[in-house]
Amino acid sequence: MQNYAFNMHTLPVGSQPSYRIGVLGASGYSGRELCALILGHPQFSLHFATAHSQKGSTLRVRAAGRVHDVPLIGPDEADLAGADLVFAALPHGASAEWVAKAIAAGTRVVDLSSDLRPGHGGVTHALPDGVPHDAPYGMPELFRSSVQGARVVANPGCYATSILVALAPLAKAGLIAPGSTVSIASASGVSGAGVTPKFEYMFAEVAENFRAYGVGNSHRHLFEMRDTMQKLGSDCDLLFTPHLLAVDRGILSTITVPLSRPLTDALEPFRAAYANEPFVELTTSLPALADVQHRNVVRIGAVLPSGMRQPTLLVFSAIDNLVKGAAGQAVQNANLMLGLDEIAGLQQ
Amino acid sequence: MQNYAFNMHTLPVGSQPSYRIGVLGASGYSGRELCALILGHPQFSLHFATAHSQKGSTLRVRAAGRVHDVPLIGPDEADLAGADLVFAALPHGASAEWVAKAIAAGTRVVDLSSDLRPGHGGVTHALPDGVPHDAPYGMPELFRSSVQGARVVANPGCYATSILVALAPLAKAGLIAPGSTVSIASASGVSGAGVTPKFEYMFAEVAENFRAYGVGNSHRHLFEMRDTMQKLGSDCDLLFTPHLLAVDRGILSTITVPLSRPLTDALEPFRAAYANEPFVELTTSLPALADVQHRNVVRIGAVLPSGMRQPTLLVFSAIDNLVKGAAGQAVQNANLMLGLDEIAGLQQ
Amino acid sequence: MQNYAFNMHTLPVGSQPSYRIGVLGASGYSGRELCALILGHPQFSLHFATAHSQKGSTLRVRAAGRVHDVPLIGPDEADLAGADLVFAALPHGASAEWVAKAIAAGTRVVDLSSDLRPGHGGVTHALPDGVPHDAPYGMPELFRSSVQGARVVANPGCYATSILVALAPLAKAGLIAPGSTVSIASASGVSGAGVTPKFEYMFAEVAENFRAYGVGNSHRHLFEMRDTMQKLGSDCDLLFTPHLLAVDRGILSTITVPLSRPLTDALEPFRAAYANEPFVELTTSLPALADVQHRNVVRIGAVLPSGMRQPTLLVFSAIDNLVKGAAGQAVQNANLMLGLDEIAGLQQ
Amino acid sequence: MQNYAFNMHTLPVGSQPSYRIGVLGASGYSGRELCALILGHPQFSLHFATAHSQKGSTLRVRAAGRVHDVPLIGPDEADLAGADLVFAALPHGASAEWVAKAIAAGTRVVDLSSDLRPGHGGVTHALPDGVPHDAPYGMPELFRSSVQGARVVANPGCYATSILVALAPLAKAGLIAPGSTVSIASASGVSGAGVTPKFEYMFAEVAENFRAYGVGNSHRHLFEMRDTMQKLGSDCDLLFTPHLLAVDRGILSTITVPLSRPLTDALEPFRAAYANEPFVELTTSLPALADVQHRNVVRIGAVLPSGMRQPTLLVFSAIDNLVKGAAGQAVQNANLMLGLDEIAGLQQ
Repeated sequence: MQNYAFNMHTLPVGSQPSYRIGVLGASGYSGRELCALILGHPQFSLHFATAHSQKGSTLRVRAAGRVHDVPLIGPDEADLAGADLVFAALPHGASAEWVAKAIAAGTRVVDLSSDLRPGHGGVTHALPDGVPHDAPYGMPELFRSSVQGARVVANPGCYATSILVALAPLAKAGLIAPGSTVSIASASGVSGAGVTPKFEYMFAEVAENFRAYGVGNSHRHLFEMRDTMQKLGSDCDLLFTPHLLAVDRGILSTITVPLSRPLTDALEPFRAAYANEPFVELTTSLPALADVQHRNVVRIGAVLPSGMRQPTLLVFSAIDNLVKGAAGQAVQNANLMLGLDEIAGLQQ
Repeated sequence: MQNYAFNMHTLPVGSQPSYRIGVLGASGYSGRELCALILGHPQFSLHFATAHSQKGSTLRVRAAGRVHDVPLIGPDEADLAGADLVFAALPHGASAEWVAKAIAAGTRVVDLSSDLRPGHGGVTHALPDGVPHDAPYGMPELFRSSVQGARVVANPGCYATSILVALAPLAKAGLIAPGSTVSIASASGVSGAGVTPKFEYMFAEVAENFRAYGVGNSHRHLFEMRDTMQKLGSDCDLLFTPHLLAVDRGILSTITVPLSRPLTDALEPFRAAYANEPFVELTTSLPALADVQHRNVVRIGAVLPSGMRQPTLLVFSAIDNLVKGAAGQAVQNANLMLGLDEIAGLQQ
Repeated sequence: MQNYAFNMHTLPVGSQPSYRIGVLGASGYSGRELCALILGHPQFSLHFATAHSQKGSTLRVRAAGRVHDVPLIGPDEADLAGADLVFAALPHGASAEWVAKAIAAGTRVVDLSSDLRPGHGGVTHALPDGVPHDAPYGMPELFRSSVQGARVVANPGCYATSILVALAPLAKAGLIAPGSTVSIASASGVSGAGVTPKFEYMFAEVAENFRAYGVGNSHRHLFEMRDTMQKLGSDCDLLFTPHLLAVDRGILSTITVPLSRPLTDALEPFRAAYANEPFVELTTSLPALADVQHRNVVRIGAVLPSGMRQPTLLVFSAIDNLVKGAAGQAVQNANLMLGLDEIAGLQQ
Repeated sequence: MQNYAFNMHTLPVGSQPSYRIGVLGASGYSGRELCALILGHPQFSLHFATAHSQKGSTLRVRAAGRVHDVPLIGPDEADLAGADLVFAALPHGASAEWVAKAIAAGTRVVDLSSDLRPGHGGVTHALPDGVPHDAPYGMPELFRSSVQGARVVANPGCYATSILVALAPLAKAGLIAPGSTVSIASASGVSGAGVTPKFEYMFAEVAENFRAYGVGNSHRHLFEMRDTMQKLGSDCDLLFTPHLLAVDRGILSTITVPLSRPLTDALEPFRAAYANEPFVELTTSLPALADVQHRNVVRIGAVLPSGMRQPTLLVFSAIDNLVKGAAGQAVQNANLMLGLDEIAGLQQ
């Protein structure tokens, strides 16, 4: 009954197994993007989509060239046990209890909140019984093996994805000068702020404007970045400054990295690390938001600036905050958890 | 004859002296802004406005609540000798020869190109006879006394203005860690790129996009910044990365400054330096482009980030690139050169 | 005490009389624009500014080249009796009772809501005691004499201003074909929707989008337009279709007028009617939003389309919805009510 | 050799026949969109892509989740004879000669210029030998049978598509009042103006602006609309007024239709006509650009306005100007010409 008619795939999926996928929190931007990706995924069917305040209404989702009307049910009506995997796209703090319920129901979970991530978004609170404190951090380019087959995965923050995929090869290669400060200026489109109407995100306040926010190392994503950098072997200090762009989607991170030794080819560390990654693109020019919007990629460029006494690498990293920064990476993780082709449903 | 009827000020200027002002290169964004400021200035009259390819047409300028149609004449028709002061808003490289002509005609000049600035925009070429190699750098907040009464002034670059006004108090106070790297991520509205139609500045290429350009310390403004920082006593390396915003006007610079000693009040160095500056605003929150558009101010905020081993100051500096970053600062300089009130014509 | 220090005009107002002006509802876009115009008006001082939910906070207002912090008080604290004139910029339906209080306190009022306008925004309700049912409709270009010296004036709606100023000369001259349909497609910037955060006005919903709303003759402004057209002698049917633009400010109305007789000069009716109007501009090209933003003008263009059996005039009318469409016209009315120069404070 | 490696479809196209498709004029917005659609089409391979001034460079095209680098060759190098079908996306006036060459080479052609359309864009010139004066007008919803199997098809203009698909059911049903004026206000995103850099399409001139252009029935698309309306049996006069929006993509047409008889259900004429059309969507709310961007659909809403003596229907029609308004409809036509499923390659 909950396996909606709109999900009768016309694609010739043949005898491929189909997985029933639920979305908790489908009315937000990430939730909506998840529904679209599920509806377009050759091996997924949308089992349910929940929304707290909008239950009973329908969500308009564009997928596979059509507009789908997805019925939104209340979270308590969700058939957790009947789903093969659930995406939890709930507010930070509210997510962990639903992860616990899904685990108790025997269902796999990809949690898009910060609740299960390393550093826990800077919040120290007890997780509900059954929720692991060390859920795999779902950034396949760095931690693929821990995601494969996992039952619970913490999906990374959008800023963290753009920054850690760019920094990881440098950290692993010992290229970041010990004890140095890595300074990061990121800029994000407004969809990163979510769908709740707030004055500062209204058109007239955002258009023709640009400003920083969450400065001074106060942003939630800093904690998962710090924890991960340590795991990757770097003791650098991160200085992270997000900005709000008058665009809908996309994050560009501009990263200043003091090097432990000079480089002659700015892209060399990335070529070695990401030669076979389906969702990392290297460019000898500079990545722009327009290159990555609506795509599940991290696009990286790098430059060796002239006239510096301290060898320094300038790295640019662009993603779509709702795709590789949220729903797309979540599907990538789900594919790995279910043993599917990692790129399934992410090539459109 | 060239003292246009449209300049019959209705303001009660009384017995105040009126200066005849010319604009060389009035068809660009800076030139147009200069015309508007001159038309609204209580002691200026617009003596001529030149344009190379658009000579013979009129320029529509909004000033003092009205729309003015300014006739554009060819540069060779300009009555240089009859003007009290000329603004040269010509392309880099083409400006110096016109500065020489104005000097030869006995006229004061504010040059908005990089030709006369410290570092000369990175270009090493001989200046025409009569053009000084050491023209005062027209940033009154730093070099007021050298601008007062000067006959030739080099108007600073827009990025340089946003950055140097922010860095100068730190440099003068010895607060920048010796030998350190000051990393600067700036973002500018499209008007900074000028009026010449280019594909990369068309609406469809800029809207919903964001990207860096001129990276790796290759931007023209870097040279005047480096030279000025040395004069101010800092030996830091600057790493300057400009970005292109999907907005019309404004520059926000986000500056990471390694400190030579810890600070307890992020704004303290700026309060001491800028207590009496009419065109510098300090804010305990964060400056946004919307705060400064169409105004001749530098708006500065600063934060001491947490969790850093190296004491670090994060400085934010916002300007309107066409006003404090170009035409407004040029009028500020002209006021000082002519012995007028520095704020005349800049309070609208 | 309520005559704030920030209002010590530095302008040489000499011996000119100064009027104490209050703003009821200062936190909306129109209220904020009113505060800016009052602060920049040579004969006005801001006596108080009220806000319901934001009382106790300050409102940042840019006027006369500076940023002012205007204290917001609760409406019940407003010194109505001590003000010479009050602008009521309150929600439709909530305004009339405050107009009644101001009248009872002996204060002049310009009401920016639809409560007192002809047609009353389509709402049939009793007005409070003392509030006139036939307050002058404050569109000076059409009804100047009834506004001069009036104690209560209904300020027109923004769409109505753009449309009626364009249609009035045609109606008065009998140029609109009797019984015909005048079809009006208007498009407005988002600021017309007010400051209350709503999902449909968030950046991501407005940017890159365009849509109609309030269609089928259901918009509140239709009633004052219909009533006024009848007063001007036309029996035409109006078909009014507003649209929402991805811009901050401005309204462009594109109006198809069936003519009662052929014209040879599309602008002729407007030239005759508006030769001496300070705030109406005629253009032989087409008016654009960029021509009128931040200015108190209606800019009108007109074209006689080819190939039509029915003689038809196509009229284009552009205004800034917050200036000539709201606060600017309100100040224009206040000037007339107080016997001041109609253009005072509106030339910046 | 010209069957590029980038076109090795990974889709399981099985034993389906593959057609070699050429694009003349691939560097424009329509040409680029055509390349993307061809690369994502299960039965098409991209045989060549030409560009006059950019020959020798590569075109970056996003299709099927990847970025493709398409080599651009000069038009004279194009293997016309080896292609099964050619899309001509060349400037108006320059296209007909290439259509003639393709016809001479025995290749099918879809011409996206106005050269072959009914009315010929208002230009009366001789077509080259072999080019038909009565090529089928490729709007399948109206003229499907004449497109099926055709060797040459004139692809409609973008505005014409949005308007004619909306008006055709009314014209065919005799619902448009005889001799009446149908007034059309359309608004288009900037991509409709093409890729050639012009001052009026630069970001700073378009953002925060809105204006009409090509008014007074002077727009090229009017001619094909008039001709088609006559063919559909209506003698109405069209009054067509296009406007320029500060968005990238999309056209919304707002159409006022005087009716020959009253209607009770605004959508009824459209339901009857378009019940089985794969690319026409009807909505009981109002179509917005966001509903149709990047999709090959015409989305139609309609309203019966109140208070009108003349029965009137207000119709809203939204399309993506580059998809259903250009490249998507061209592929739809190509599918019909080649006997393929009409929706092939258009469901992404």
